[in-house]
Amino acid sequence: MTVFHAVDVIKAKRDGEILTDTQIRSFIQAYTDGQVAEEQAAALLMAVVWQGMTTEELSAWTAAMVASGDRLDLSGVGRPTVDKHSTGGVGDKVSLPLVAIVAACGAAVPQLSGRGLGHTGGTLDKMESIPGWRAALPPDEMITVLQRVGGVICAAGPGLAPADRKLYALRDVTGTVESIPLIASSIMSKKIAEGTKALVLDVKVGTGAFMSDLGQARTLAETMVQLGQANGLRTSALITAMDTPLGRAAGNAVEVEESLEVLQGGGPEDLVTLTHALAREMLALAGVDADADAVRHDGRALATWRAMVAAQGGDPDAALPQATDHQAIRAPQSGYVTRLDARAVGNAAWRLGAGRARKEDIVSKTAGIWCRAKPGEWVEEGQPVVELAIDDPARVPAALDALTGAFDIGPEPPPTRDLIIDYIHF
Amino acid sequence: MTVFHAVDVIKAKRDGEILTDTQIRSFIQAYTDGQVAEEQAAALLMAVVWQGMTTEELSAWTAAMVASGDRLDLSGVGRPTVDKHSTGGVGDKVSLPLVAIVAACGAAVPQLSGRGLGHTGGTLDKMESIPGWRAALPPDEMITVLQRVGGVICAAGPGLAPADRKLYALRDVTGTVESIPLIASSIMSKKIAEGTKALVLDVKVGTGAFMSDLGQARTLAETMVQLGQANGLRTSALITAMDTPLGRAAGNAVEVEESLEVLQGGGPEDLVTLTHALAREMLALAGVDADADAVRHDGRALATWRAMVAAQGGDPDAALPQATDHQAIRAPQSGYVTRLDARAVGNAAWRLGAGRARKEDIVSKTAGIWCRAKPGEWVEEGQPVVELAIDDPARVPAALDALTGAFDIGPEPPPTRDLIIDYIHF
Repeated sequence: MTVFHAVDVIKAKRDGEILTDTQIRSFIQAYTDGQVAEEQAAALLMAVVWQGMTTEELSAWTAAMVASGDRLDLSGVGRPTVDKHSTGGVGDKVSLPLVAIVAACGAAVPQLSGRGLGHTGGTLDKMESIPGWRAALPPDEMITVLQRVGGVICAAGPGLAPADRKLYALRDVTGTVESIPLIASSIMSKKIAEGTKALVLDVKVGTGAFMSDLGQARTLAETMVQLGQANGLRTSALITAMDTPLGRAAGNAVEVEESLEVLQGGGPEDLVTLTHALAREMLALAGVDADADAVRHDGRALATWRAMVAAQGGDPDAALPQATDHQAIRAPQSGYVTRLDARAVGNAAWRLGAGRARKEDIVSKTAGIWCRAKPGEWVEEGQPVVELAIDDPARVPAALDALTGAFDIGPEPPPTRDLIIDYIHF
Repeated sequence: MTVFHAVDVIKAKRDGEILTDTQIRSFIQAYTDGQVAEEQAAALLMAVVWQGMTTEELSAWTAAMVASGDRLDLSGVGRPTVDKHSTGGVGDKVSLPLVAIVAACGAAVPQLSGRGLGHTGGTLDKMESIPGWRAALPPDEMITVLQRVGGVICAAGPGLAPADRKLYALRDVTGTVESIPLIASSIMSKKIAEGTKALVLDVKVGTGAFMSDLGQARTLAETMVQLGQANGLRTSALITAMDTPLGRAAGNAVEVEESLEVLQGGGPEDLVTLTHALAREMLALAGVDADADAVRHDGRALATWRAMVAAQGGDPDAALPQATDHQAIRAPQSGYVTRLDARAVGNAAWRLGAGRARKEDIVSKTAGIWCRAKPGEWVEEGQPVVELAIDDPARVPAALDALTGAFDIGPEPPPTRDLIIDYIHF
């Protein structure tokens, strides 16, 4: 005797009704178990895109995704846990220095990351350009590294939120990615399952981000902060600008290179600003009173980084792989760079091989883009604005094509913009 | 190199864009061929439920469903072709006498029918209660019978509108049945593919019909008439009341029995009225000048019926199977029957075994309901109002349950209602 009918749940959402906890839990569980067909889940997802979800529905939906798998218990780590999640941007390597900095300050950062798809890179792809480093780490080993080093960046295991894994793949092929409740529940279910007690979200808005509308970004940020709080995570969000690449590098090894500059006390100003803002927010949520800037200048963050890399088989002393060729796009006239489009740079790096079009694609470790001049900086005619790091010359034309019209140069500097647009706390 | 991306079509419809002919044709063809996954079709269907379709989109969608398979050529039949389709109601056995009457008048009626699902019966299920009769008929044999006899009732072969066959099964499990463009294209693609040159639609509205809202029924009727005309079929529609069963019998053999009364010049008034109205409309569209009432009284319609039955292996002289038991629900007081609910009677017949809950269920030939008193008729206390024809006593309680509150008796006759609510011609 089955009392649960998937089609009744679909029809209810289609007709704008509010689903009950039981309906949501039954549907997600049956879908995870393969008893609800992919086509039924697809129909429900499209109905959710159409009709949305109430706060209560979204909370039940997220809880059901968490309940579809394991939830890690990090209580034995012995330090306050805190994580960060970014909705993705071009040149966004913040996680690399940030995890080491916050860990060096005394918190534990259990960063379960993903790979890149499309024009934004993936943290795991970047880390994998370090010789020897491997992303897979069983849960018990992850906890050991957290205890010992304080920070870990690794792939989420198959036991965490398996419903999200199935739904994410389904959304990709059914045109149901662009839905705030579906995005929010996907992100938050994984972070809740990973076991962190605190979470800072970096919700990006702009041409290089998933969202270009500030109102939508704010709604997504508020939705996720609410969801985190409702599930016992101290959660806050920053809304940050993603109209131009973060830092100067976009790619894999090139982003590790720039991350090392930050860990050595240097690095581009915007990248350092955002890394510090996120570190302060994370330390505040974790209740750790420490100075993020100090650990960056006294070598402690770098030492943590080296330990993190070594713990996952990486050689912190090995040279990073280098591109075989470079090609510059030069300033046609002298002036200020008034615009350098994040999406164009991201697409160019992707087409050079740094990103993937399909999940099964292999990414290039060395391909990428260096932004030699960023908005507000002066360039002389003929100086490089953008430089391509190339490992496959056949890919250059497509990258150059992506960069057509990617920057403007003018006689006046552009108005200064806020990198950090807003903080969302409840 | 594939230039067609299913997900782009889904997103376009999701975002309220108008799909191009090429997008629609490519999607339907790729879905029929199995290159578009069920989950992608499900997402598109839900987006169509949400966003609707323009007249042009619906026309392209229907044409693509027709083009997914064969289109019969009935030009060799030698008579004008005309068919009828009903959206389904309780006790709606009209097709049985109607096909014979219109064929006896000189037109050819290529009635490709379906089986019942839920509370409304299927024409093929009714016909199969005739000893020996079989529904399957290859296209060439169907054409031969049409030439020789003038009328044929048989199952649509797998070659006709295979896209509709797949989409219909998918809609059933994904909550995407209730959409006027999807209903209209499903019905019309099959009728266009069957090769008839003219078509009369009987769109039913009321408690026993698929739709209970007159406005929606009118929209569906207009949509289908437009679609027919745009595809070269002379098409019109009647909108008819389905609040109480049509005639007195609901089931399979019991409906054949009542159909024979009509073919012998008798039969219940409402059934005769509707049969005649549809016959007149069909003959007008087919351009045949003949008297439907005359062929019903002079034996020509009955002779055509007998030839139709015999052509598909049936024995027109064999006795129809009879239920093993009967049980009456009697009037608790004397008075006029003021209401006898079609849905309740349909559900009761279904629960007695006359209908199926799943496509693979086998239906009872003999189970059904006789309406011994209909709205407007006087009954004495203790006289039967409804009579159950039973072949499985275990099913009686569920049927009695369905009939709870199914009729009212009062001191005054109910207001007379129009059986034929409207005609839709363009």
